Amino acid sequence: MARLKVEDFAPIFYPKSVAVIGASPDLEKFGGRVVMALKVFGYKGKLYPVNPQEKEIFGLKAYPSINDIPGPVELAAIGIPARGVPAALRQCLARGVKAAEIFSSGFAETGQEEGRRLETELGEIARDGMRIVGPNCFGVYCPAGGLTILPGADFPKESGPVAFMAQSGGFAGRIGQVARGWGIRFSKMVSYGNACDINEVDLLEYFAQDPETRIILSYIEGVKDGPRFVDAVRRTSQIKPVVVWKAGLTKAGSRAVSSHTASLGGEERVWEAFFKQSGAIRANNMADLLDTAVAFLNLPPSPGTRMGLVGGGGGLGAEASDVCERAGLSVPLLTPQSLDKLRAIIPGAGTSIQNPVDVGSPIPSAKLLRSALEVVAADPNVDTIVLNQFNLFGWRPVPTPYSKEDEQRGQELREVPVDFKKTFAKPVIVVEPLFPKDIEMLHIEKENRLTRDRCLQAGIPVFPDLERAIKAYANIIDFYRKAGSPHAA
Amino acid sequence: MARLKVEDFAPIFYPKSVAVIGASPDLEKFGGRVVMALKVFGYKGKLYPVNPQEKEIFGLKAYPSINDIPGPVELAAIGIPARGVPAALRQCLARGVKAAEIFSSGFAETGQEEGRRLETELGEIARDGMRIVGPNCFGVYCPAGGLTILPGADFPKESGPVAFMAQSGGFAGRIGQVARGWGIRFSKMVSYGNACDINEVDLLEYFAQDPETRIILSYIEGVKDGPRFVDAVRRTSQIKPVVVWKAGLTKAGSRAVSSHTASLGGEERVWEAFFKQSGAIRANNMADLLDTAVAFLNLPPSPGTRMGLVGGGGGLGAEASDVCERAGLSVPLLTPQSLDKLRAIIPGAGTSIQNPVDVGSPIPSAKLLRSALEVVAADPNVDTIVLNQFNLFGWRPVPTPYSKEDEQRGQELREVPVDFKKTFAKPVIVVEPLFPKDIEMLHIEKENRLTRDRCLQAGIPVFPDLERAIKAYANIIDFYRKAGSPHAA
Repeated sequence: MARLKVEDFAPIFYPKSVAVIGASPDLEKFGGRVVMALKVFGYKGKLYPVNPQEKEIFGLKAYPSINDIPGPVELAAIGIPARGVPAALRQCLARGVKAAEIFSSGFAETGQEEGRRLETELGEIARDGMRIVGPNCFGVYCPAGGLTILPGADFPKESGPVAFMAQSGGFAGRIGQVARGWGIRFSKMVSYGNACDINEVDLLEYFAQDPETRIILSYIEGVKDGPRFVDAVRRTSQIKPVVVWKAGLTKAGSRAVSSHTASLGGEERVWEAFFKQSGAIRANNMADLLDTAVAFLNLPPSPGTRMGLVGGGGGLGAEASDVCERAGLSVPLLTPQSLDKLRAIIPGAGTSIQNPVDVGSPIPSAKLLRSALEVVAADPNVDTIVLNQFNLFGWRPVPTPYSKEDEQRGQELREVPVDFKKTFAKPVIVVEPLFPKDIEMLHIEKENRLTRDRCLQAGIPVFPDLERAIKAYANIIDFYRKAGSPHAA
Repeated sequence: MARLKVEDFAPIFYPKSVAVIGASPDLEKFGGRVVMALKVFGYKGKLYPVNPQEKEIFGLKAYPSINDIPGPVELAAIGIPARGVPAALRQCLARGVKAAEIFSSGFAETGQEEGRRLETELGEIARDGMRIVGPNCFGVYCPAGGLTILPGADFPKESGPVAFMAQSGGFAGRIGQVARGWGIRFSKMVSYGNACDINEVDLLEYFAQDPETRIILSYIEGVKDGPRFVDAVRRTSQIKPVVVWKAGLTKAGSRAVSSHTASLGGEERVWEAFFKQSGAIRANNMADLLDTAVAFLNLPPSPGTRMGLVGGGGGLGAEASDVCERAGLSVPLLTPQSLDKLRAIIPGAGTSIQNPVDVGSPIPSAKLLRSALEVVAADPNVDTIVLNQFNLFGWRPVPTPYSKEDEQRGQELREVPVDFKKTFAKPVIVVEPLFPKDIEMLHIEKENRLTRDRCLQAGIPVFPDLERAIKAYANIIDFYRKAGSPHAA
């Protein structure tokens, strides 16, 4: 049984009114940034800045105290110094406020007696009937509720099926920023800091039931109740992928998480066992979280392990073969019929089309690429196609500014995987390097991003390099195997 | 004893005249691209296009045959179909041409009898007195000689201390493009394909002696003579770092390298032993090659293993600690004196400054960052400082266009590590995420690249993420340990 009911989260994700305790006209202060972030993001409910010194903050009427606010308040967003937080929360509780997000730091993470005592008080207030996110966090992003985290003023307003719970506010901010370009949209994101009340298990149990959430990502520094966490992950993994990035596994990392969110890091071997037994998908960094989300969002359940690699360049093919095989995927020989067809399409092809299929040029014509993909799609030995290094503007014989002709060529090439996806049932993955180059080459990267965006819109997963693509792909295969999904091959 | 003398390479790297056999006015053909690439890159010697049908190619007088060229020819660049290559080479040999680079494919890599026979002929011609690069390659880039590889028209004209030998032309092209932005400049780059004559050992022995080369990077599909290669790497590694990316270690990869450059992949465990015994630095992809070069170019010999991590954000610090400790580096506690000083500088700092040092904001003021760095620089427990996620424009409370004020702030912050480097002997590493975001955010990335370029100009190594930074750093520590350098701590 979950500790909290789904309804308990309503004032956290969909509050009809928010009071900002410690609101400020100063954008250097958290209390200023909260108001601005909610305003810019477009919170639609009642927004009440609370500050005894101000009449108005960013065009909104300010109130001297929570008690001066005319209507009901569902969520309090708190940015005042730590020692004032318990009293402010008690006032909120008395006023009927159901939930709070506490941005302030200065609690147990300080390692000081006073901070620990203050945090204990927060826990007591929670038990008296208030749900608390934080302290020492960046709060909640829920586009459907019109809420955003502290650094989330420009986060997307559209919702999506990905949930993210992060003990680090910085990572929540960063993933929101980066995920935009990768077509990842969120149902909810919660930066929950020290977790004095709502913790990783509560959130997981909520996300498991949340119909808006299909994929759960997490960054965790420490868990409050190990057995309950393992149990929650195991149950949730039967129905939704749970991706866990656990930090603080080394001695130095453990010390760092302790001073960050007062968490116990935990031993590496305990967590190794956790990943083996719980069904969680392991992530080691931000890229793993993003890539796994891209894979689940854009690939069918239980795809196969036999990869067909298509690209321009033999070195690329050698690298790709090593990467696939190391990840437990196979790169089978194509059938003799396919080889004959490819030899008719690709000039001068010898054995370089057996799989990987070297299309002979890093920038093939759209016609050639289209025909080659169709042959591989028809080959019975291949489950999934990887279009490797789909780098439209990688190599130009003369370095001149892009012409209309170049642009047109790029557009044509860009439609090849999109048309393929419409016509064939076989999944296709695009690998497009977005390797940071020098400033003068930003226009090339812009073209590459247009391709990325076009593919993602069409439901084709795109990754910035092959290793990341294959790791994410292997993750989804592994998930459906363990979950014993009805889709499993 | 090296098989070839240093002088043998003079016509390959510094030819006074080049004949392009198979020159063409068609840029879709290799013979067209070669002439254009050399012309655009600015080859200063005599350039002779050879084509019986053309009078002029890209403004250069064309010659019907090699025998019609008036002066001496040192290097032949060959782009005609495979079966014509031996006869053309014989003509060149008779004409006194010393060396050739053969772009044409259709040799042993086809797996066909005819291709193998043709390649055997090339070997015989080489033994008769001609040095050959290739076939099935993109040739030679040597800025001091005015030469560039097929896709290298826009490669930098300045030389640098990095040599790259690559059995893949595609990777040579790609590294040249990407390396620009990372401040890496090359002495020589050789795409050597099937290696019918000049192979990895010849090149290694040359680079070992080449005074223009300090760091050797390689992408290898197969070696012709294992024991000789191991011996050459072992000897060279005593004086210069040799970074080896070996492809074709899995079954599928081995098949791919065989059809790419007719190489034998080799067993993974044999190569494991090679990396343990030879002193070579192992790379697994393009990023490893680039990062290791950046580290060697910008760090002193034998830096220490005690890292001081400075950044804005607790999650970041936890991740960084794990990454360092897993790489065998330590993140020691700062001295009580340092902690006192940091507490006076960073508002509200509790234990979050023990190391990692959380400066409290992802975008601290230049003044705060400068002071914090100085404290860590003075701490006797720290050898090297990592300025982690130096992301100037990561989080803005209001998403507005950049103002003059923002620009100025960015410029100030950018000078902090640069000034630090001028004042303190302790090495500093900058980690600046260049995570590909969406198209509207390209201007943020432009700002980040300005920072990257400014730091690299000042001799400060920059990496796009912490894992890559630490991996490269660990590589250089390992190199000096094994080489038993006189600088070793």
